[in-house]
Amino acid sequence: MQLTDLHGSLRDPLLDTMNFLNEVTARFPDAISFAPGRPYDEPFDTEVIAGYLDAFVKHRGLSRDEAGALLFQYGRTKGHIHDLVAATVANDEGITATPESVVVTVGAQEGMLLAVRALIRDPDDALLVASPCYVGITGVARLLDVAVTPVPEGPAGIDAGAVRAAAARTRTAGRRPRALYLVPDFANPSGTSMPHAAREELLAVAAEEDLYLLEDNPYGLFTRSGDRPPTLKALDRHRRVVYLGSFAKTCFPGARVGYVLADQLVVGPDGSTSLLADQLSKIKSMTTVNTSPLAQAVIGGMLVTYGCRLRSANAERVQRYRERLDTLLGALARHFPPGSGVTWNVPAGGYFLVLSVPFAAGEAALTRCAREHGVLWTPMSYFYVDGGGERQIRLSCSYLTPEQISLGVARLADFIRSVG
Amino acid sequence: MQLTDLHGSLRDPLLDTMNFLNEVTARFPDAISFAPGRPYDEPFDTEVIAGYLDAFVKHRGLSRDEAGALLFQYGRTKGHIHDLVAATVANDEGITATPESVVVTVGAQEGMLLAVRALIRDPDDALLVASPCYVGITGVARLLDVAVTPVPEGPAGIDAGAVRAAAARTRTAGRRPRALYLVPDFANPSGTSMPHAAREELLAVAAEEDLYLLEDNPYGLFTRSGDRPPTLKALDRHRRVVYLGSFAKTCFPGARVGYVLADQLVVGPDGSTSLLADQLSKIKSMTTVNTSPLAQAVIGGMLVTYGCRLRSANAERVQRYRERLDTLLGALARHFPPGSGVTWNVPAGGYFLVLSVPFAAGEAALTRCAREHGVLWTPMSYFYVDGGGERQIRLSCSYLTPEQISLGVARLADFIRSVG
Repeated sequence: MQLTDLHGSLRDPLLDTMNFLNEVTARFPDAISFAPGRPYDEPFDTEVIAGYLDAFVKHRGLSRDEAGALLFQYGRTKGHIHDLVAATVANDEGITATPESVVVTVGAQEGMLLAVRALIRDPDDALLVASPCYVGITGVARLLDVAVTPVPEGPAGIDAGAVRAAAARTRTAGRRPRALYLVPDFANPSGTSMPHAAREELLAVAAEEDLYLLEDNPYGLFTRSGDRPPTLKALDRHRRVVYLGSFAKTCFPGARVGYVLADQLVVGPDGSTSLLADQLSKIKSMTTVNTSPLAQAVIGGMLVTYGCRLRSANAERVQRYRERLDTLLGALARHFPPGSGVTWNVPAGGYFLVLSVPFAAGEAALTRCAREHGVLWTPMSYFYVDGGGERQIRLSCSYLTPEQISLGVARLADFIRSVG
Repeated sequence: MQLTDLHGSLRDPLLDTMNFLNEVTARFPDAISFAPGRPYDEPFDTEVIAGYLDAFVKHRGLSRDEAGALLFQYGRTKGHIHDLVAATVANDEGITATPESVVVTVGAQEGMLLAVRALIRDPDDALLVASPCYVGITGVARLLDVAVTPVPEGPAGIDAGAVRAAAARTRTAGRRPRALYLVPDFANPSGTSMPHAAREELLAVAAEEDLYLLEDNPYGLFTRSGDRPPTLKALDRHRRVVYLGSFAKTCFPGARVGYVLADQLVVGPDGSTSLLADQLSKIKSMTTVNTSPLAQAVIGGMLVTYGCRLRSANAERVQRYRERLDTLLGALARHFPPGSGVTWNVPAGGYFLVLSVPFAAGEAALTRCAREHGVLWTPMSYFYVDGGGERQIRLSCSYLTPEQISLGVARLADFIRSVG
């Protein structure tokens, strides 16, 4: 069979990117890897899993037979821990969401697939995306043959003016701007965050332009210092925000449990109403049927164990990520003094920052850096749909110890000197 | 927001069907339900899960840290139990598949999504489906705006002539017939099975017509008596078959772990080659990133515990399903003598059979039957993309005890008499 006979997405380098991010660390096991946006490893005991399952079963008051029927079987398409998810976002983010507006998904990635499939009616609709952008969302758009309009981020993330301009550009091209995907807090890949006022302005623009906002918030708890503005969803008075949630960073990735909050009312041709969550559920029934009830119960057990408060449950992780980001910023300052030609941004939290370098930082440079200097990173060009970031790299500090970070930056400095 | 502003699939009754099948039992908890195609419930102990996880970790020889990095983290997109899957299909079905041709998926449903997305290049391609057909595949086609051509099943399933005719019809309509989805063994919903000779003929037609066969085999181990012909994949000399596997019926549904075997060679424009499995993996990276490594480890633990032989591990279940199908057939014969106007087929295994009844068996009849007679079933019309099955119902016996089956058929007979 010829590759040209398969769906066009498979010839788009974009679809290689996720596997790159997902697997590059395994390809260079001895390198210090600033590449993956994954949490640090934690040791595994089967008793921990059994303990969470027990906590969940006890919390629900399930008999052995009832637990079997819930955890071993097929189940409710929208999930069975929706009430715990709603309680958690209320406690941690002040978001008011009814359990019925929650769809439990196979990670936030499936949430993106469901949201984009539902909201994009036909080829005349377009998806706006922050640029640079997480490849998960542009990949979904590519799979579904959805047109994408990039909205350039500034140093403080997305601003209302840029969204208005992108919407106008989309309309001029004959398409309806339908939704905007963004990470307002400690964005992947850029590390930028939106100030409170900019969030209010964005919500106003969304209402004006009839745009839905797909707010992805995997890193929001991991502040580097003090407070953080409220999420868009917490400020959402006109139900413009579809909130994409993840437990990958606050519980663990291996459960593949995330969620969508979609409390928008959908009015049918006969006047009947449903929640957007129910429409997403219909799509989900055809993508994965339901999220593993067993995996949901493990996450559910973690949530009840922590009183549905992941902010306090993650206090130690918050501290560790803070230390890692501080270590990274400190090491960069030591190795790249003013005038070195290397600059970076200073994120207020999260996993990532962007380094600007004086050379083309593509896959060739990356491979040489990995082989000869034992350091991995991600070319920023991977995160642009229409060019950009050619002399920038994304550094992720989440997966490394402070010692590895210091050593990694030293090696990176050697590599950059060798190029220059 | 208006429903008419969302993707067209959401106005198609097809997308309500899976949620119906998935959730109807919960809506009428006291009814005897011949509706869901799910295994019977088994009791749950957290120690069972911990035991399988231990078995897996021990089999792999993983340290506590290594186990944490594998089970708690993101992982290989194609999955981490691919070797065990390959060993199992070799042992149980005589299928030769390299581990690299395996993609572990979130149930067979995600496998369908990946296969259809990869194989259907553009709107000029069409998917052929057995008719009547499992809604999971037609639902995927609807989500992706893929044209579908039904291939009518006969009493012995799909035959080569019907496929040739459907392919010709598709070409006449200006489309390329690209793949055919079917369940050769104990089909859902019809219960039909293809004889050995028909399988060889179908493989020959697939080669002639340049069609790929999506063979879905969730029920194949559950024979009612004696032997069963080899799967299409076991007979596949020209790599025409993409095999969709499920552990939902042979292990348990709540893990949501299935797989695709896709050993086709894909040749790129530059002459480089890859496996179709690798192309599916690229798509999977944008649908669910990877299948829960934790859920995979539970299934992996079951596989190693049973020596990668699910046929023998399921001996008791095979016996139980056999008894259920026999009970159903016996009860039908008692309640519907010749001349009653009610007829049915006699499947050689699996979960399902089709009852032909002398009235319109749609949702109104179903609701009345559930409310007034306490019995649930599935209208066969749900399984036709272009009309059909209006006076037929699907009975599934998998979820019920023999006593419930006998009582359920008696109630169903009451209902049918009340209609007639």
